[in-house]
Amino acid sequence: MRTSIATVSLSGSLTEKLTAASRAGFDGVEIFENDLLASPLAPEEIRARCADLGLSIDLYQPMRDMEAVPADVFTSNLRRARNKFELMSRLGADTVLVCSSVHPLAVDDDALAAGQLCELAGLAQEFGIRVAYEALAWGRHVSTYDHAWNIVEAADHPALGTCLDSFHILSRGSDPKGIEDIPGEKIFFLQLADAPLLAMDVLQWSRHYRCFPGQGGFDVADLVRRVLHTGYDGPLSLEVFNDVYRQAEAGPTAVDAHRSLLLLQETVGVTTPPAPVVPTGVAFAELLTPDAEPVAAMLGALGFSRTARHRSKPVDLWQQGEARVLVNTGPAGRRDGTSLAAIGLESPDPAGAALRAEALLAPVLPRRRAVADAPLDAVAAPDGTELFFCATDRTELPNWRADFEEVPHEGGSGGVREGSGGVRKESGGVRKESGGVRRGSGGVRRIDHLALVQPWHQFDEAALFHRSVLGLHAQESVDVADPYGLMRSRAVTNADGSVRIALSVGAAPTDDTVHAQHIALATDDVVTAARRFREAGGRVLPIPANYYDDLAARFEFAEGELETYRELGILYDRDAYGEFRHCYTRTVGRVFFELVQRDGGYRGYGAQNAPVRLAAQHTVTGG
Amino acid sequence: MRTSIATVSLSGSLTEKLTAASRAGFDGVEIFENDLLASPLAPEEIRARCADLGLSIDLYQPMRDMEAVPADVFTSNLRRARNKFELMSRLGADTVLVCSSVHPLAVDDDALAAGQLCELAGLAQEFGIRVAYEALAWGRHVSTYDHAWNIVEAADHPALGTCLDSFHILSRGSDPKGIEDIPGEKIFFLQLADAPLLAMDVLQWSRHYRCFPGQGGFDVADLVRRVLHTGYDGPLSLEVFNDVYRQAEAGPTAVDAHRSLLLLQETVGVTTPPAPVVPTGVAFAELLTPDAEPVAAMLGALGFSRTARHRSKPVDLWQQGEARVLVNTGPAGRRDGTSLAAIGLESPDPAGAALRAEALLAPVLPRRRAVADAPLDAVAAPDGTELFFCATDRTELPNWRADFEEVPHEGGSGGVREGSGGVRKESGGVRKESGGVRRGSGGVRRIDHLALVQPWHQFDEAALFHRSVLGLHAQESVDVADPYGLMRSRAVTNADGSVRIALSVGAAPTDDTVHAQHIALATDDVVTAARRFREAGGRVLPIPANYYDDLAARFEFAEGELETYRELGILYDRDAYGEFRHCYTRTVGRVFFELVQRDGGYRGYGAQNAPVRLAAQHTVTGG
Repeated sequence: MRTSIATVSLSGSLTEKLTAASRAGFDGVEIFENDLLASPLAPEEIRARCADLGLSIDLYQPMRDMEAVPADVFTSNLRRARNKFELMSRLGADTVLVCSSVHPLAVDDDALAAGQLCELAGLAQEFGIRVAYEALAWGRHVSTYDHAWNIVEAADHPALGTCLDSFHILSRGSDPKGIEDIPGEKIFFLQLADAPLLAMDVLQWSRHYRCFPGQGGFDVADLVRRVLHTGYDGPLSLEVFNDVYRQAEAGPTAVDAHRSLLLLQETVGVTTPPAPVVPTGVAFAELLTPDAEPVAAMLGALGFSRTARHRSKPVDLWQQGEARVLVNTGPAGRRDGTSLAAIGLESPDPAGAALRAEALLAPVLPRRRAVADAPLDAVAAPDGTELFFCATDRTELPNWRADFEEVPHEGGSGGVREGSGGVRKESGGVRKESGGVRRGSGGVRRIDHLALVQPWHQFDEAALFHRSVLGLHAQESVDVADPYGLMRSRAVTNADGSVRIALSVGAAPTDDTVHAQHIALATDDVVTAARRFREAGGRVLPIPANYYDDLAARFEFAEGELETYRELGILYDRDAYGEFRHCYTRTVGRVFFELVQRDGGYRGYGAQNAPVRLAAQHTVTGG
Repeated sequence: MRTSIATVSLSGSLTEKLTAASRAGFDGVEIFENDLLASPLAPEEIRARCADLGLSIDLYQPMRDMEAVPADVFTSNLRRARNKFELMSRLGADTVLVCSSVHPLAVDDDALAAGQLCELAGLAQEFGIRVAYEALAWGRHVSTYDHAWNIVEAADHPALGTCLDSFHILSRGSDPKGIEDIPGEKIFFLQLADAPLLAMDVLQWSRHYRCFPGQGGFDVADLVRRVLHTGYDGPLSLEVFNDVYRQAEAGPTAVDAHRSLLLLQETVGVTTPPAPVVPTGVAFAELLTPDAEPVAAMLGALGFSRTARHRSKPVDLWQQGEARVLVNTGPAGRRDGTSLAAIGLESPDPAGAALRAEALLAPVLPRRRAVADAPLDAVAAPDGTELFFCATDRTELPNWRADFEEVPHEGGSGGVREGSGGVRKESGGVRKESGGVRRGSGGVRRIDHLALVQPWHQFDEAALFHRSVLGLHAQESVDVADPYGLMRSRAVTNADGSVRIALSVGAAPTDDTVHAQHIALATDDVVTAARRFREAGGRVLPIPANYYDDLAARFEFAEGELETYRELGILYDRDAYGEFRHCYTRTVGRVFFELVQRDGGYRGYGAQNAPVRLAAQHTVTGG
């Protein structure tokens, strides 16, 4: 199907908006009147620009307060309409959106509305223009799609049809089933937007909180299915008013937007892009650093061993159990300090995973940029993190490990061992012990999760990306209080929890010295792990004594247990499924580590403890 | 009355919060549990810190899900409570807040709730602690203040009272009249918060959008009057959860907060600070610039003349009609480029105005910082703009004009003339023509308004400041679409419109190269003024042709009128009262000028045209 986007959904000048829409792959645009008014380009120039960019102008919008008004107002409205139709002719736009009236003088008279819309359509027809009448959710007398359709039906003019908007329909709680009763050829346009399920004034909700399909709580796909069932063959067009997108760069927003429509088309069954290939584990995390020494000291204290070195690049592999960390000092000047730059994901079908990602507009990384010489498939996530699709244990496929050469054993508990990389049961059942770490030894078994701080504007985009491109499941978003602002956090995981990525974002651009990314390492015995780390010279993040007094009030612990946690800076949480014990290292550059012990199927990430952690990090950094 | 603030209302570490509260003049604090948990200070150290800072700890909060629960849960609750009472003893806090239960097992049984609260109060009493029971607006079974009071009354324990919270009461639409039926000695605490009138989920509303009294839409003063009527003699305490304050610096937020309580006390009649002295006109606007040349060229083209020079400082007075602009090249290194640094306000009582400002916590500027040598009273607004209280025409008072020496006439329409500075009728009535500018000459008569861009965090603070300190009236806030984000704008004015200040703020910190401050100059004939400006070499902001096509659609104009506007870059708006014609100059540094013609009592500022202006400014600056 053809895809379109309203210029109001993107930031910048009209030219920037059009360019972004074209580059992201849209077929057309809705020209929002204010964007045209503010543009120095004449309508003919806009038309030519669109043609150059391969964009059709699918809609001009909006025309307001047209119908069900007193005769003198309507006369003036027709004059205004004629002027706009002339403009549309210069622009080469053949459909205009008319929103149901909110005019203070509008009356509740469907016959009058139909009559005036019929007259308007007659005028439009002279210009070869079609009028698409839409019910605003807050329209004065017409606020539901079926009411608007009744009026269009009564007016019975070939140049008059209806425009359906998923926000206006679903925000009112209207049953979209009735859409199937509208003849497809009378649905002149379909506007799509999703929104988080907020209980708030519908006008404010609409103007500030709309988002792209799949990012909110509406069943937009169900509505689209019903519209397609009518035989509608116009474009799927996004009209999204969102305060965040207004400030974000148009380019990435347009890509995000188009991805949402590609996913929607897949969901409703009109396209079949390559299927998602869900990752089955974390092959490695890669740190970029200008100075390997502090990172090496940290990894060593955590029990990792440097087991291999890249044959041609300054990259070391550190390993413990199935946890692997690459330390790359190559492009050191590229970023400040140490950062988490790439993630290797175990994939049952790396090439298929890359095809899926490419089909959903993820930037495919040139292979020469890959850290390994093996021709790994890799794409960039919205935050710039590089995702490598790996098959560590499948010798028939290109293998990143082949580019590494073992180094002599330097001590520590690790060693070059091939991890299974396959599906592992998280709780109960038999656990495959391929990493050579004994239960209860305090060794690190694998990477539990990766926590990535997202650029402010890209929180919803990041969740949709990981869900649609990687086939991960997005959990509920939670608010976390940082001393200097509220953060939002949301995890994406595969079914068995062997891939968990926690995405987080501050409430607004802010100093992010403590909002570092982190690598959480799974152990069966966090007490032993923390103690060993400390004995090896590692420094854990100090946790305030008051926190432990509160734990004592909230939970009952075995004799001495709480004292041990207090001594080692271990935090504690519990959910309906099990328990969580965890502690944090100090930060190196923009990265820190967490040691976590999950018992009994605990599903969370210790969000309850995050404010204490954040405050402690501010204290340490003096923030 | 004593004033207090909950630590959750301020950003930062607990130490930063306490310091900010103390410096702003609060008598006490509510310690929010999470702030204590995250603090590295022991309770005894927090107690000592508060004592050093002159702060009492008026409340420890919150204790949740205590009452109306099954026996085993309550046993565990009492254990938790004992632990917290021990903590409170170390802290030296004698009142604890208990919020009505949201526990999933809580039952709808007032007798059980009363019995358990009575038992809890008994335990508290052993520690010398009082329990203040509060109805959360979203409490599971108890969500109104009268219901909570009924339970407290039934429990009938001397250590059990109620806590009233203006947000919980007013957000539910409860009638606060019933408060007067509660004995004052049983109201153990009073928490105050205002909020904008939003139709949204009350929990989200409470957690993210509370604001300080006077900044929102609740009648907090009425509620406080009723509470005082009961004989309540505890503190007025602010508990405000707000996403913006969480990110703002604690110091200014605390000052803002305390100012709101000072104003509230004045409103309810328990204090009588110096009365507001409403300014009666704008004496001058002062520009700071490292390079006077571009500013001088701009002012010259606008018809201003350099009429006087400061006797001892590098400050020029430019004048036209009653519009006066000071150009100060003194502290040039202080800021980047040209900025609007100070405003002179005509005051019927400059000393009184300064006393009022000081009483409401406006920083009083040292007199040596005043631009003039005359001992002018001056304070700083929240955005740092210096406000000078002037009496330009009253020879018995210190006069800023006395520090200036006339310079020889250099041409232009101005000249050193004493403006009346007094109250002028805006529409109708006799207009005093003291500036020597003929009607319709296109000359500038006076400063119409000043537009100040506020730091992101201080929009509500700024409005409250201008309202309370200067006695100006705050108009409704409007949203304005900038190509790169939404702006909010709100005007504060005196009754006759001779002082108008438009405050605006972006939706978030953003590139502010086009979000410059500006000086709007009133003329009776903007067409002539714009034409003269252009002929004098001035450059107006170019307005897109599409804008004029739209004007033609929306309004009917006299023959040739629209063509004139198009030629000169003049924008047009109309409201229920009259018409508005205006145009903009290019930006110099961070300042631009606007020429405005108000006819027939138009009340606005052309907000309808602001998106076009902002887009044009982005186009010009290449943004």
